Amino acid sequence: MPPSLPLLFLRRHRLYIRLRLLSTTAAASSPPPPLEVTLSHPIYMLWGSNTGVGKTLVSAGLAVSSLSSSDPPNPPPKFVYIKPVQTGFPRDSDSRFVHRKVSEIFLRRRTPLPLLASDHALRASGPAAGEVPGGGAGDAEAERSCVMEGGWKDLWSYVERLVPGTESETGGSSSNAAELVCKTIYTWKEAVSPHLAAEREGANVSDPSLRESLGRCLEACLKGRDRTMCVVETAGGVASPGPSGTLQCDLYRPFRLPAVLVGDGRLGGISGTISAYESLKLRGYDVVAVILEDHGLLNEAALLSYLRNRVQVLVLPPVPQDLSDDLMEWFHDSDKVFSFLREIMLAAFAERIKRLHDMPRKARNVFWWPFTQHGLIPQENVTVIDSRLGENFSILKVHSNQRDQLIAPQFDACASWWTQGPDAALQIELARDMGYAAARFGHVMFPENVYEPALKCGELLLEGVGKGWASRTFFSDNGSTAIEIALKMAFRKFSLDHGILKDLTIDDFVERSLDIKVLALSGSYHGDTLGAMEAQAPSSYTGFLQQPWYRGRGLFLDPPTVFIHNGDWNISFPKPLQSDVLKIETMTVSSCDDLFSQTRDSSDLARYYSAHISQKLFQLEEPRESVYIGALIIEPVIHGAGGMHMVDPLFQRILVKECQNRKIPVVFDEVFTGFWRIGRESAAELLGCLPDIACFAKLMTGGIIPLAATLATEAVFKAFEGDSKLMALLHGHSYSAHAMGCTAAVKAIQWFKDRHTNPNIVHEKQCLKELWDPELVRQVSSHSAVQRVVALGTLCAIELKANGCDSGYASIYLSSLVHRLREDGVYMRPLGNVIYLMCGPCISPQVCNQQLEKVYQRIHEFSTETAKHTEFVSLPE
Amino acid sequence: MPPSLPLLFLRRHRLYIRLRLLSTTAAASSPPPPLEVTLSHPIYMLWGSNTGVGKTLVSAGLAVSSLSSSDPPNPPPKFVYIKPVQTGFPRDSDSRFVHRKVSEIFLRRRTPLPLLASDHALRASGPAAGEVPGGGAGDAEAERSCVMEGGWKDLWSYVERLVPGTESETGGSSSNAAELVCKTIYTWKEAVSPHLAAEREGANVSDPSLRESLGRCLEACLKGRDRTMCVVETAGGVASPGPSGTLQCDLYRPFRLPAVLVGDGRLGGISGTISAYESLKLRGYDVVAVILEDHGLLNEAALLSYLRNRVQVLVLPPVPQDLSDDLMEWFHDSDKVFSFLREIMLAAFAERIKRLHDMPRKARNVFWWPFTQHGLIPQENVTVIDSRLGENFSILKVHSNQRDQLIAPQFDACASWWTQGPDAALQIELARDMGYAAARFGHVMFPENVYEPALKCGELLLEGVGKGWASRTFFSDNGSTAIEIALKMAFRKFSLDHGILKDLTIDDFVERSLDIKVLALSGSYHGDTLGAMEAQAPSSYTGFLQQPWYRGRGLFLDPPTVFIHNGDWNISFPKPLQSDVLKIETMTVSSCDDLFSQTRDSSDLARYYSAHISQKLFQLEEPRESVYIGALIIEPVIHGAGGMHMVDPLFQRILVKECQNRKIPVVFDEVFTGFWRIGRESAAELLGCLPDIACFAKLMTGGIIPLAATLATEAVFKAFEGDSKLMALLHGHSYSAHAMGCTAAVKAIQWFKDRHTNPNIVHEKQCLKELWDPELVRQVSSHSAVQRVVALGTLCAIELKANGCDSGYASIYLSSLVHRLREDGVYMRPLGNVIYLMCGPCISPQVCNQQLEKVYQRIHEFSTETAKHTEFVSLPE
Repeated sequence: MPPSLPLLFLRRHRLYIRLRLLSTTAAASSPPPPLEVTLSHPIYMLWGSNTGVGKTLVSAGLAVSSLSSSDPPNPPPKFVYIKPVQTGFPRDSDSRFVHRKVSEIFLRRRTPLPLLASDHALRASGPAAGEVPGGGAGDAEAERSCVMEGGWKDLWSYVERLVPGTESETGGSSSNAAELVCKTIYTWKEAVSPHLAAEREGANVSDPSLRESLGRCLEACLKGRDRTMCVVETAGGVASPGPSGTLQCDLYRPFRLPAVLVGDGRLGGISGTISAYESLKLRGYDVVAVILEDHGLLNEAALLSYLRNRVQVLVLPPVPQDLSDDLMEWFHDSDKVFSFLREIMLAAFAERIKRLHDMPRKARNVFWWPFTQHGLIPQENVTVIDSRLGENFSILKVHSNQRDQLIAPQFDACASWWTQGPDAALQIELARDMGYAAARFGHVMFPENVYEPALKCGELLLEGVGKGWASRTFFSDNGSTAIEIALKMAFRKFSLDHGILKDLTIDDFVERSLDIKVLALSGSYHGDTLGAMEAQAPSSYTGFLQQPWYRGRGLFLDPPTVFIHNGDWNISFPKPLQSDVLKIETMTVSSCDDLFSQTRDSSDLARYYSAHISQKLFQLEEPRESVYIGALIIEPVIHGAGGMHMVDPLFQRILVKECQNRKIPVVFDEVFTGFWRIGRESAAELLGCLPDIACFAKLMTGGIIPLAATLATEAVFKAFEGDSKLMALLHGHSYSAHAMGCTAAVKAIQWFKDRHTNPNIVHEKQCLKELWDPELVRQVSSHSAVQRVVALGTLCAIELKANGCDSGYASIYLSSLVHRLREDGVYMRPLGNVIYLMCGPCISPQVCNQQLEKVYQRIHEFSTETAKHTEFVSLPE
Repeated sequence: MPPSLPLLFLRRHRLYIRLRLLSTTAAASSPPPPLEVTLSHPIYMLWGSNTGVGKTLVSAGLAVSSLSSSDPPNPPPKFVYIKPVQTGFPRDSDSRFVHRKVSEIFLRRRTPLPLLASDHALRASGPAAGEVPGGGAGDAEAERSCVMEGGWKDLWSYVERLVPGTESETGGSSSNAAELVCKTIYTWKEAVSPHLAAEREGANVSDPSLRESLGRCLEACLKGRDRTMCVVETAGGVASPGPSGTLQCDLYRPFRLPAVLVGDGRLGGISGTISAYESLKLRGYDVVAVILEDHGLLNEAALLSYLRNRVQVLVLPPVPQDLSDDLMEWFHDSDKVFSFLREIMLAAFAERIKRLHDMPRKARNVFWWPFTQHGLIPQENVTVIDSRLGENFSILKVHSNQRDQLIAPQFDACASWWTQGPDAALQIELARDMGYAAARFGHVMFPENVYEPALKCGELLLEGVGKGWASRTFFSDNGSTAIEIALKMAFRKFSLDHGILKDLTIDDFVERSLDIKVLALSGSYHGDTLGAMEAQAPSSYTGFLQQPWYRGRGLFLDPPTVFIHNGDWNISFPKPLQSDVLKIETMTVSSCDDLFSQTRDSSDLARYYSAHISQKLFQLEEPRESVYIGALIIEPVIHGAGGMHMVDPLFQRILVKECQNRKIPVVFDEVFTGFWRIGRESAAELLGCLPDIACFAKLMTGGIIPLAATLATEAVFKAFEGDSKLMALLHGHSYSAHAMGCTAAVKAIQWFKDRHTNPNIVHEKQCLKELWDPELVRQVSSHSAVQRVVALGTLCAIELKANGCDSGYASIYLSSLVHRLREDGVYMRPLGNVIYLMCGPCISPQVCNQQLEKVYQRIHEFSTETAKHTEFVSLPE
């Protein structure tokens, strides 16, 4: 017995203030503005484990429950329902259903408060608009202000009702009313999957535009009023395609809204619900509850057992099959369930907020961060990272009023400590692969065994970064261990080649002690374990304070370095190189390509480098006979942790030649440079010469999981052959060649080099296209505050002019600059007075340059302010 | 127009030879016999993305395609269809459907070959059996030989047809006929999910029994004849529960059969198909093809795009909705699709076989295994690991005839190099968590940041293994790096406490050089990076041959060790301890508990230990003033890599006390012992004293992914406080506290200590129950070939008597023993003349003892054979 509708029924056209809700016609390729999500109100995404499982009924039920709750009388509650994508429109409209049902229920039940309920559909495809009474067909276009754009019509279809409350029977005012806001953003006529409807009706919307629209809609609808709850209802199942064809679980991932999953109570529904849940987990979503209609099959028991009671499972009464049923009774019977669901959602929301809030404090009590003087990091400087996707972190942003909190994206300019490579698509692929590898292998021990991911990874390494020289892969866990292994390999090879092992028994070796040194470059860095440290020149990272055992077992040469200044590439020669012959301090090179050109090998400079190196080696060999140079170890092209210094490639090439002429094994530390970091798959390729041993890590797995490899030539490998196990390389780590790491590496190595997955690959040259706009780089390098720039591959490093204690590793000179950039959405961590932008190999150059632009602006601002206080001592240029 | 059926129609009861197909009444807890899967024929598992998507049609289509193929005329093809679980029986019977349809099609088409088609249902619940004509109701039970057992009836329902071929029109003989074998194993009457039917009809089957039945069925059906293909059809969707409630994707995981997924072509079917695919991947399955019915929605396009063309997607014509349609036309129209599907399946099978076959050779060409003398590993000794689940590997087993290959389970007695802990259930949970962590975080940089998994992991470590002493967590990648960090921490704390840093500037520190040593025990092992090596006494792992930089910067004491011999626990005192006071070589202790009892602290032995240690420290301090003992580092209780020696806990406790009295920081290397390896969450707990610093790794993540933590007291942490960053601990690795590792650690740490997930937890004592049967251990330790046994927690180590070069790390004395154990399904890797069994903390003690039993048998055999050649020199006991 439906009541007659004594409603204040307003149908308003063009009366409401138009929200800046819909994206402008920005090119699809241009990145969207930051997608910030407020934490002031609980916002949930409602997913279905299939179509037709009753998502909209759950939305309506939640709306009723939220709007009827009168816990505190003021402010009155508000419920926002958003349906970003609706097909079958206007015949089907989930937001209209929610609007109508909730209004009906309120009318019947008469709560004390009046209810102001609105339903608003924003945009329609041409065919959908044509079906809306007064929505596009019939009347004159101009009059309706329908704007055609990319197949879209603005659809000012707006309905508002005021259901009076018991306490204000007559008229009712909207100011003290509970409020229901229902919005549909994009609509199509055909009742098919959105990607089909979009194609067939010629009205498509790109993923960034759709996200932007949803972001704006959330922002507009959630402003103000406390006691607001919001539900965003997806279309179809969790992995149903959105309008562009992107799966919805991927499409909405940048928001990573907490999820409620509507399960399937039918036969087969256990499977569908569990699989849908797993698809959500495989995208990093948190599911707080599963709710499903009772079909008498007790599916909830199986679901609870699977979920091990970690996620709540709720059961709704069977929905009447009779289509004429107005569902009033069903909603009444479901009341308690929805109220419980709402409580779960509110509790999970409150818990999340509390945890996020507490995290900085707890972190400061629990962690011992590497490379960090804890006293210098106040609580407010601790960054809470809620998640990452592709190049961006999502961090907790607390406004100065301490009340407004957001989850906001931030560009990870550290490429998460130089490891990171995946774009969003690769990250999700890797997630599935990680699940697969863990399920198939967990971890299996390596020695004397073979399993697919390890073998494939080994093969890809030898075909790729080891091409033309390496024949063996030795796996370990990180760059530092890879270096320790490389040194052991090199020393054995050297000892064998130089007769040191001749006529000695195995027992002799245990006692034997010789002074074997490495040849290395000042400013290079190879890791923090003792062996790796010993191969480095004394620096802040070494010394008694860090490890009293450090001695510095190397002959360390000062290399000529290269940088951009005023738009020019310059070579700077260190003091020891500025002798009688080379009287200059710097030299300008016409281009970066020229710098790497092999034609330089026959130049005067090459001969000079060669003579210089020979002399150094001779000096060492002469005085004491028992000192050997057992290995050359270099970071090819770029000294990373040493301050992002680029070394003259010619110098390194000559160094390698001189060593190989003397049968000194050459080790390339490509932990930082490997896998496209500087524009080629390996730095060796760019340098144009081959090592005997090389170390890889970081980007090798796409930057998601530790794994390292030391590659070696067959000659190096053979130096460990013998009858006894004691002749073998007795070095290993438990997780050697672990299946998950190798699986990630296999995927990442292939992804980065394939032009179908990496748009930056210039196929003919097997290199990355230029990511940093040369003009912008010139501009930055010409700024008076900038000392030098190195832009190569995925790296753009900028050294700022600084004096005394403002320069060097321990400097905190740039703290304020870095904090402002974080406000701009760029997450940086300086190396003393050097800042850098680092990105993945698949990144859009446009994004790179947007970040560089921000950096440039902030440098300018910073230098202007600094200039007020101090004056730069002009440095030799 | 269905033809009349001029079939040779035989209904045979009790005529066939009864296969030993069904499991006996073994208790559910007893482990099943090994599930070996032959690689002689392609066997696929057919999964549905939902119920009612046409799995059985696909099975029938594949059968037709396989049986009609006449590529080579001989032998005639055979197709095996197995339905392990059938509800709604006998009204519904998928195997009957396949049998009937294929027969009909053959009858119509008339292939040259005759077809012998059989359908056989094996077991029925009471109610199901009652519905079968002559299947249990009506006639006398005894006469039918129906065996009642756990609610089951043996159902001898067998149908066989011979469809004559065109070339042998009359009669037809079965010897040259193509053969279709259809089998249903377990049946229930109600058409609901198997777990409900099983419960309601009182006929259940445990997972191991069901797997055993399926295994036997596969074995029986696939014997002989080449050109056989087999399909095992699951029930419902991929994650639909099996009879016990276990999800089918988990239930069948031990077989890990390659999969074909029947997708869903309906609205919402894209989502369901993708999610089902992801659930399969999350269990480590390989899906070779997706096939779905065309519903005009082009679902295949979205699926192909998602699968990036890596998996084939095939589309079947729409199935007639008319129930009276005999589908003859549909099968005809689908012919090409099924034939293509079959080709894909055959090609994937061939490729897999080839890859498995090639792997050992390729591995020997590509890998450089750690701790391995490659020349000693012939190709046939390389183990191909196809997967692992819980405690077991699945390895490739090649029979001596080189033709028969199997995938066979093998107990991973190395617990994959001492890291492994998960049972099957935890492994699958971890797989989902790894997918989630990769999708939510990938990796995010750690310093100055906080994110949930790192914080939670840090909290759990401090509340667990760090309880009562640790206040800080420093993350790194493996045990070796954790040790390097621990040493740096200890030396700084020591320097500060002993005034070494007083009045020095930061610049002084860089130059400062002092001889700081560690105090350590001979035979202990801490890792292979140089710093970790330096803390070890000279051994096979160190020395010039491995790393010429090694010096051995320690004062190394010989500790008293403990072991079981003839069932007794003995303490053995090394030479340096056998002085005037302690005149004995060994001492017997009444029990293991007594050994750890704190009452020993006031014994004479304690005083003697104390005096001995003081004297050693004094000796070192006296002669040269500039030598310091900067840290004590020990592996508490067990020396792992040093040969599984147990150290007298009293000695270690006194050592710790003596050092702490002298303000020498104490480091516990719990990389091996941590997380229940020896029966308590930490060895410190067992030892009964607390360190200042402790290192954890291996089992921390459940053994699936590298992660390490160095825990420290607040006092140690404070030694790094200062105004300058240079005072901080400047040590770090890119993947510090990586999200995936921390996520795994959070799950594993909680899982291992929770008695709801780990049945071995003795709640009151917070320890593991005894895993090794004391009587069996006594027996082993009393064997004449056995030198000593250490059985503690998850470890059971056995040292065999050996002389000269047969003992020690490089010994290959036990190779033959180890190879025989591998034939028994136990995967071991000896440490010289020490073999060990190691397992996860959740393992069933029954499984442990089964393995130990095998070891005992093989030791006996080995010693008998060895005794023929040599004689043991009797060792002092």
